[in-house]
Amino acid sequence: MASTDGDRRPKYQRIADTLREAIQAGEYVPGDRLPGENDLMNAHRVARMTARQALGVLQSEGIAESRKGAGVFVRAFRPLRRRGIQRLSQQQWGSGRSIWSADTENRDLVVDQVQVTEEAAPEHIGAVLDLEEEGTVCVRRRRFVLDGKPVLLATSYLPMGIVAGSAITEENTGPGGTYARLADLGFKPVHFREEIRSRMPSKDEARQLGITAGTPVILICRTAFADEGRPVEINEMTLDAASYILEYDFDA
Amino acid sequence: MASTDGDRRPKYQRIADTLREAIQAGEYVPGDRLPGENDLMNAHRVARMTARQALGVLQSEGIAESRKGAGVFVRAFRPLRRRGIQRLSQQQWGSGRSIWSADTENRDLVVDQVQVTEEAAPEHIGAVLDLEEEGTVCVRRRRFVLDGKPVLLATSYLPMGIVAGSAITEENTGPGGTYARLADLGFKPVHFREEIRSRMPSKDEARQLGITAGTPVILICRTAFADEGRPVEINEMTLDAASYILEYDFDA
Repeated sequence: MASTDGDRRPKYQRIADTLREAIQAGEYVPGDRLPGENDLMNAHRVARMTARQALGVLQSEGIAESRKGAGVFVRAFRPLRRRGIQRLSQQQWGSGRSIWSADTENRDLVVDQVQVTEEAAPEHIGAVLDLEEEGTVCVRRRRFVLDGKPVLLATSYLPMGIVAGSAITEENTGPGGTYARLADLGFKPVHFREEIRSRMPSKDEARQLGITAGTPVILICRTAFADEGRPVEINEMTLDAASYILEYDFDA
Repeated sequence: MASTDGDRRPKYQRIADTLREAIQAGEYVPGDRLPGENDLMNAHRVARMTARQALGVLQSEGIAESRKGAGVFVRAFRPLRRRGIQRLSQQQWGSGRSIWSADTENRDLVVDQVQVTEEAAPEHIGAVLDLEEEGTVCVRRRRFVLDGKPVLLATSYLPMGIVAGSAITEENTGPGGTYARLADLGFKPVHFREEIRSRMPSKDEARQLGITAGTPVILICRTAFADEGRPVEINEMTLDAASYILEYDFDA
């Protein structure tokens, strides 16, 4: 059990830490029942409310879940695996086993919200897209849902000077989507850059993604380049970190 | 100002949210002075302690910093840019501008702790490294510091059956490091897989990385493969999310 000497945080937080560390160390695996309120009351000499709060912390973090009448159980981490690089060379390594157990079945992300507008480009977008002065962008905002839970917000920016009049400005971009339409227009994406960060969600992001306390978001900013390094799309994505593993495969 | 109707969280949290969102919206940029305690007291009709707590939240998140006698200022986000794929093709795109402003000067990561041991392989490591029964691993634990601040914990696992007797089992692995030594041994890494997740740090990780409240960690699990897809190293990395941007460049 973790030493809690000199730790000034509330007792229920310290008990939650102890349980979390035991889970991370593999002492409890997904599906295992965690110690109940009575167990925690005896082991830590605390009141029932404190024991309940400790278990509540782990539930709000998505690490554990309560099953009516049966107790609190370690949740399986069953994330989406997002392969950043879909390349032929990946196939030769695709059979390698992976570290984080992850469900790789085909699971469908569904778009449940889409909004397409023409807007003045935000400054940081305009700078990267090499827009003419007063150039506007086509903005495609989408939310993706997995098994009924929102997991991804994506906002794409494309120069209106390139995409005006194409299906990219409509909700349904047609077969092959935005990138196929960019190719039709003579701006086929041939190179991508993905930049990744992580931070706590804003209140609005937490609401839109249904994120529980203690879960960060992953930010991916993807820039698509056509020939000669011309940037043709920026896609700013916000992911529920508890729902994703990102994977990049590449040669030395 | 964000509406706070029906929000049951403490007032100082809501004020902190409002300020954070204003920073994210660009109303305050790095170096700007945030409203002071008196400003917040007037604007939100709260006590000085509440105003101080709100500013304290932003400081503990690393978003703002206090300057003695001058007030609280928006901190510059000055992360390390970690390029996951060092490939020739990158050069042709290297001059493209990037979304998140980031310092790309040469800044040196310094190893301030290193520990090399021989251990029984943790189960998830042994499974991936295709170890013989009772096979042990060489474990290299390192901590990396930038400008005096720990930013990265890295633990590498290599099959003892491959690396025994080589400099990989010593603190100093020699010129070119572990990968050069693996090449000497006939196991040159030719392919890599990086898997990325994000979550809140454990108490121990927060302590080792000096992470302030409200900052997540990024986990990278890198697997190095030699010819024929043979896994030769697993490197589990834990990064202070506030210190890093990860970048992956690749062709369509």
